[in-house]
Amino acid sequence: MEKAEVERKVEESVEEDDQVVNPWQVSAKDGGKIDYDKLIDKFGCQRLQQSLVDRVQRLTSRPPHVFLRRGVFFAHRDFEEILNAYERGEKFYLYTGRGPSSEALHLGHLVPFMFTKYLQDAFKVPLVIQLTDDEKCMWKNLSVEESQRLARENAKDIIACGFDISKTFIFSDFDYVGGAFYKNMVKVAKCVTYNKVVGIFGFTGEDHIGKVSFPPVQAVPSFPSSFPHLFSGKDDLRCLIPCAIDQDPYFRMTRDVAPRLGYHKPALIESSFFPALQGETGKMSASDPNSAIYVTDSAKDIKNKINKYAFSGGQDSIEKHRLYGANLEVDIPIKYLNFFLDDDAELEHITKEYGAGRMLTGEVKQRLIQVLTEMVERHRRARAAVTDEMVDAFMAVRPLPNMFD
Amino acid sequence: MEKAEVERKVEESVEEDDQVVNPWQVSAKDGGKIDYDKLIDKFGCQRLQQSLVDRVQRLTSRPPHVFLRRGVFFAHRDFEEILNAYERGEKFYLYTGRGPSSEALHLGHLVPFMFTKYLQDAFKVPLVIQLTDDEKCMWKNLSVEESQRLARENAKDIIACGFDISKTFIFSDFDYVGGAFYKNMVKVAKCVTYNKVVGIFGFTGEDHIGKVSFPPVQAVPSFPSSFPHLFSGKDDLRCLIPCAIDQDPYFRMTRDVAPRLGYHKPALIESSFFPALQGETGKMSASDPNSAIYVTDSAKDIKNKINKYAFSGGQDSIEKHRLYGANLEVDIPIKYLNFFLDDDAELEHITKEYGAGRMLTGEVKQRLIQVLTEMVERHRRARAAVTDEMVDAFMAVRPLPNMFD
Repeated sequence: MEKAEVERKVEESVEEDDQVVNPWQVSAKDGGKIDYDKLIDKFGCQRLQQSLVDRVQRLTSRPPHVFLRRGVFFAHRDFEEILNAYERGEKFYLYTGRGPSSEALHLGHLVPFMFTKYLQDAFKVPLVIQLTDDEKCMWKNLSVEESQRLARENAKDIIACGFDISKTFIFSDFDYVGGAFYKNMVKVAKCVTYNKVVGIFGFTGEDHIGKVSFPPVQAVPSFPSSFPHLFSGKDDLRCLIPCAIDQDPYFRMTRDVAPRLGYHKPALIESSFFPALQGETGKMSASDPNSAIYVTDSAKDIKNKINKYAFSGGQDSIEKHRLYGANLEVDIPIKYLNFFLDDDAELEHITKEYGAGRMLTGEVKQRLIQVLTEMVERHRRARAAVTDEMVDAFMAVRPLPNMFD
Repeated sequence: MEKAEVERKVEESVEEDDQVVNPWQVSAKDGGKIDYDKLIDKFGCQRLQQSLVDRVQRLTSRPPHVFLRRGVFFAHRDFEEILNAYERGEKFYLYTGRGPSSEALHLGHLVPFMFTKYLQDAFKVPLVIQLTDDEKCMWKNLSVEESQRLARENAKDIIACGFDISKTFIFSDFDYVGGAFYKNMVKVAKCVTYNKVVGIFGFTGEDHIGKVSFPPVQAVPSFPSSFPHLFSGKDDLRCLIPCAIDQDPYFRMTRDVAPRLGYHKPALIESSFFPALQGETGKMSASDPNSAIYVTDSAKDIKNKINKYAFSGGQDSIEKHRLYGANLEVDIPIKYLNFFLDDDAELEHITKEYGAGRMLTGEVKQRLIQVLTEMVERHRRARAAVTDEMVDAFMAVRPLPNMFD
């Protein structure tokens, strides 16, 4: 065994006792909560300071999104540079994506898209959305056809988030890989050794080579030249990637490689994870529909799931609750309201009253059920209005002449 | 280190003392000659028996190509099945290729194309020719643009071999990867572990992931569904690959995977290596122009190279030569004539007279110079007639309605 290999294995064994965050696994130390400060240190990104949030407000002349105000998007890489460039009058483009592994999205899946929609509106910039059907075909052992079908189904949910068709290009890898995009894949692949991807992603020799081949596919939408129909002659355009922080490894690799190819490093703005109903120590699991609220859930489903499964920080008895108040640190209804109740004053009021024991869990859950039911109902109506023709239109390889207007 | 890994390393260290034949390296044991029998054993392919050559003659009603008569193409995999199917009235398609790493081709590069041209004419079947500009961009550290330029230049030499445009599709990977081709790449990649490609190709952890990603690119032209514009609805069509035996590792991998994807295993017909001027123990080297005859060499170059560098099996003095005759086992002029002098009677005559010492090296070289000068001159004229429009036409993604006529 070579020295580098030994060191790597040692590093891995240390990590085994610690929290693990990568695109395929998110688990905290000893079943506790994810330590985001530690993650920022380990990944080497920056915490998103209030001063940057204030600056976004000033530059866009609109209140910052609730996910910015409440620290849901809490970390970044070079977001300041994006704002500096924007202030100088230079535009940028947004890149986000989804691995289409399931038919129905849950609320956690909507978080990056809701935020990206806000960024698109606030900064008036174009957006590319990658559907990694190739990845899911390889990781989840889905057929090519099923992966592509799920990609189109998921595209409908994404479009339902309200993206501007004159500024948005949605693509599936199976459809779009080729040409300039493939050339960039090859350029990236040339710059990354196998040992490097093992270090970043933890692949083993028994993993298939599709996994080893994939990181460049997710990397290259960060480079404007991968989209000649959109950005021809704009190789200098910067890219901002809103995503959950588990995607950071892909873009750490991309940022390493970018200068060697003559591209800007993509900037990132990264969110924490949306917790499972059972609490932040639990995992939302595709195999357990009761661990999450889905956008396909009925009002009755939502009511039932929140009342039955949403982990409460309230006390065991009303008497104790009035005396000690709720433990807000572990309370899921409060956490969910923190994501989705837009009214700062109301959230503050609930938090204060609940924490002091003057409000009961049942009351807080009642309000959450209202908020989520409205939100899911709104999404359902929007999605029902998305036709196959609209999906085709968003996914058509076409120029977007008004994308910077 | 895992058990499988240890065994692999042991196997490698044994091989180090032995001959090495893979797509990037061909070297015999202790600077001797390649042992083709051993290679056939190691790779697990079959020797091409005379009975199969006779059958080709019968099925095609034409004399077998000189490369078949003289054992230049000496090994195969499932070639008999191709002939069985052909006899039943089922057609097949041919697939060959080239890695465009240099501007000018040498005679060794022409061997598979000359033979493929014969197969196309004799069996009246379509042909796909892959130009692996992506591979050369990654292995030789060429830019994308330079790899593509070389691919087009090489395409001209290939077209000059006389392929039938109504039956031939030439493609560059940078142009063509995508769609159905990419889907097959993903399907193949899913079936091959990293350990497997290390075992087949000898990659190390310090190799870049582009190398690890490439084998599926060379694999999938073996499957008709990679060419929907040609073979739509013909997923059952068999594929025959004429190539030098150093490409066998790619297709061993492909044949392993094919049944799992519901495809036929591609059949192979494999050639020995074309020797360097300096002898079979030497290597044709791109950095030494005197090790090979190039299709761009002038008559004067050819005369000079053969006279000066072609390793002779003749004796040191005329007296000894008359007494002992030439050592035909090591004589390069005879070996080259074996490839390119079509007249069996004349070759037999020269071989006999030279071996008996009645003919001198100078006379044999004289005849070889004639043969090669004519051949290279013919190629030069044909290549000069290849226009950019013809290259575009051969490389256009188009149906070939008369490809089986």
